[in-house]
Amino acid sequence: MAKVLHLILGRVAFRLNLIYSIMLKYKVLSVSLFVFSFLISTQSLAQKSDSIVIREIFDMELTQGKSYSNLYDLCTKVGNRLSGSEGAKKAVQWAKQVMDDMDLDTVYLQAFEAPNWKRGTIENAFLLNDGSEKIPLTISALGHSVGTNGKPIIAEVIEIKSWEEMDELGDEKLKGKIVFLNRPGDPKYIDTFHSYGGCVDQRVWGASRAGKYGALAVIARSATVTVHGFAHTGVMVYEDGIEKIPAVAISTEHAEFLSNSINKNKGAKISLELNCEMQGTAIEHNVIGEIRGSKYPEEIIVVGGHLDSWDVGQGAHDDGAGCVHSMEVLQLFKMMNYRPDRTVRCVLWMNEENGVKGAIKYAEVAKEKGEKHIAAIESDRGGFTPRGFDVAGEDAVKEQAYKKLQEWKELFKPYKLHHFEYGYGGVDINKLKDQGPALFGFVPDSQRYFDHHHTHNDNIEGVNKRELEMGSASIASLVYLLSEYGMTVPF
Amino acid sequence: MAKVLHLILGRVAFRLNLIYSIMLKYKVLSVSLFVFSFLISTQSLAQKSDSIVIREIFDMELTQGKSYSNLYDLCTKVGNRLSGSEGAKKAVQWAKQVMDDMDLDTVYLQAFEAPNWKRGTIENAFLLNDGSEKIPLTISALGHSVGTNGKPIIAEVIEIKSWEEMDELGDEKLKGKIVFLNRPGDPKYIDTFHSYGGCVDQRVWGASRAGKYGALAVIARSATVTVHGFAHTGVMVYEDGIEKIPAVAISTEHAEFLSNSINKNKGAKISLELNCEMQGTAIEHNVIGEIRGSKYPEEIIVVGGHLDSWDVGQGAHDDGAGCVHSMEVLQLFKMMNYRPDRTVRCVLWMNEENGVKGAIKYAEVAKEKGEKHIAAIESDRGGFTPRGFDVAGEDAVKEQAYKKLQEWKELFKPYKLHHFEYGYGGVDINKLKDQGPALFGFVPDSQRYFDHHHTHNDNIEGVNKRELEMGSASIASLVYLLSEYGMTVPF
Repeated sequence: MAKVLHLILGRVAFRLNLIYSIMLKYKVLSVSLFVFSFLISTQSLAQKSDSIVIREIFDMELTQGKSYSNLYDLCTKVGNRLSGSEGAKKAVQWAKQVMDDMDLDTVYLQAFEAPNWKRGTIENAFLLNDGSEKIPLTISALGHSVGTNGKPIIAEVIEIKSWEEMDELGDEKLKGKIVFLNRPGDPKYIDTFHSYGGCVDQRVWGASRAGKYGALAVIARSATVTVHGFAHTGVMVYEDGIEKIPAVAISTEHAEFLSNSINKNKGAKISLELNCEMQGTAIEHNVIGEIRGSKYPEEIIVVGGHLDSWDVGQGAHDDGAGCVHSMEVLQLFKMMNYRPDRTVRCVLWMNEENGVKGAIKYAEVAKEKGEKHIAAIESDRGGFTPRGFDVAGEDAVKEQAYKKLQEWKELFKPYKLHHFEYGYGGVDINKLKDQGPALFGFVPDSQRYFDHHHTHNDNIEGVNKRELEMGSASIASLVYLLSEYGMTVPF
Repeated sequence: MAKVLHLILGRVAFRLNLIYSIMLKYKVLSVSLFVFSFLISTQSLAQKSDSIVIREIFDMELTQGKSYSNLYDLCTKVGNRLSGSEGAKKAVQWAKQVMDDMDLDTVYLQAFEAPNWKRGTIENAFLLNDGSEKIPLTISALGHSVGTNGKPIIAEVIEIKSWEEMDELGDEKLKGKIVFLNRPGDPKYIDTFHSYGGCVDQRVWGASRAGKYGALAVIARSATVTVHGFAHTGVMVYEDGIEKIPAVAISTEHAEFLSNSINKNKGAKISLELNCEMQGTAIEHNVIGEIRGSKYPEEIIVVGGHLDSWDVGQGAHDDGAGCVHSMEVLQLFKMMNYRPDRTVRCVLWMNEENGVKGAIKYAEVAKEKGEKHIAAIESDRGGFTPRGFDVAGEDAVKEQAYKKLQEWKELFKPYKLHHFEYGYGGVDINKLKDQGPALFGFVPDSQRYFDHHHTHNDNIEGVNKRELEMGSASIASLVYLLSEYGMTVPF
């Protein structure tokens, strides 16, 4: 009994202390609210305070937020920014300046070596239906692809719908041909990332698998469930020991056109010319800014997105949105004059798209320094209406994080977030996983993401200001809760 | 004990009967599934069957749905369609043809009289900052506004932010002036319909309130939280006994520009010219199609949207989306070869925008015929990602409907619907309320709706195919459940 009483009193004291510290931070909670709060249960009291703070975060963002103007600048003043490009350099300077202007406790760059692939100036494909017809196809060289050695490859095109079909055809039918991988994403998945996951293997592994059978080049149907006229680039991988052959994506619309055309005109050829090439490596930089925690500065909460993008469009949803979401967490805390208990660090990783070298570097340095990351949140699924968070990490912390999310989810209900499930954190924060933080993947609505992803169509025009702002406020709210309540790192 | 046993057996028999009827309808459930199902509880068995059917509805829609192609046709072949216009006539014929082609049990038109307002050919406003400067403003005459009698009104413009301010200024300051109502929608609301609800009074009542004080015309800030360059038209109302003065909406961007300009240049004038006018009434038509119920044909489930739109843009989200959603319910049931137990009736109401005469007519006829409407679902909030349903109606049935939604909501979880709350059904189905049906308002994501609503920007380009399809499948799933389980009408 005494022990129970002790526990209860301890809990009350903790809550009162918490409430008081929040009151000091915000000056919005009057004494009358404090007295009123005291009359209700301590649990609901703390919840009430949190709900007030979260309401303030959303109000601030929806009325004075800088997410959209920042993204507008990144898209229009910097533009796309593949590792090694001039755009990447400008993006690093731009992001550093934005964070410098926030008057944070520290802002710095973190250098590392990243692949330096260049698209080049020649990129075209034509369907040659007969001697006279030459129909241009909407294609995009895949990242890390080799070029065509100064002249077009002209060869018969063979459509293939599955890896089994490719293996059956083998050397005999594929040697000297251009292989056209045309398995569509499945529209029946409700989450479009699942459709993407079910067809992106063609983009990543197509060149190696077809190269093994002596094919001259690969054309992969764009990894999107949307049927439209944009080619979706993205990274591909050459397996060791297999001849490197050029690889491009074709728009889904032209994939359907090409399929119909070659069914009507068997033996049709394609002319493909590219002068893309890998040019060794380049020095790149992560951009990092932080607010030091007032009580537990050694406990770090990371929030981030990736600053690089593909070299087409403006990288608005992928992942300009994630960058401005993450910077906005610090911006909001500064605007609200809120100093978190724990250190909140915004990390904009470079080179997520073709190497993940930025995240690898960040995790290495964290380990070397013996830093204690209690949580990491990644936003890399676009700037659409927020639906919730996936939770991931090592088993022990993942379960703890899941339980906390279930406790907190009522706080997000007024903002229509409802998804708080085990899932995937993100490519960049995953590199921190073995250091023990809880990993959270921000989950916005997925329906429109693959209308834009890795295309010339990923521009500021495709971003809705309010949807973007709602994402920033949602992430800031989770960071606030993590900062207040912490997370026990298991090792 | 005997009574409990009887209840249990009765429940098992009911479930088995239900399962069997579903099996007959779908032929997709094998005997093995039946045997397996028998081994688990009867409650979860019925739920399993429903979950399979709902999965089939979504699969069908996401792979073979006609929602988007129908909306594309409505937008591009018919275009906008205000009551009394040629567009409205074409829309009625188009919708009847689409439903005729579905081979329904009946398709018919329902005639009634509706207001016939015409925008006319002259619609312009200029800010006259001084003698020489003449700056065009983006405006749109409000529906039912009078014109300016063959010549521009030129007068000083007075900006007003609240009704209180207007009443304070009164005759003395407003007589002979053009009143500019510039109270913005509140961006802090998460649901943009609430922001709209908080500022649309300026559009509706501005002319009467300013007319009372002798103002010559009213310019109302567009009723949207979005700051952009489109003027949002919409209906306005003249109070009896007050001089009718012309009323227009100004784009939010130009509202801010105008506000800044007249603050710098006190006494600035505006020139406003309109030749819009009310031309009596026109005969209009609701379009109705139905599948008769196999077991309880007298129990009617209505699903509908409004076929009219404003006379700008294409009426894509408002409410082409709701029309194709509703027609798609019948389309899906036909494609799935599913005959519902209860009658499912698609009603496309005409004249929702400026009179609601179609819904009034429909409700009158239903009452005359003594029809028994057990439920009515309205889709009139755009074609965005579905979030759930609002439930409304007379108290007794509303509570019953709410309870059923809570039972059913797990079935919608795989499709990420999560909102099942008391709320608002819709303008058109509300006319049926006193006849006792449960009213359901389809709730899609609201963030982008007021980027389009009542503007030249409400076009097919603003509609995402998958988001639209997800809406159709969600509504069809609710109609399926209502058809299977019914709803008790209290009177």
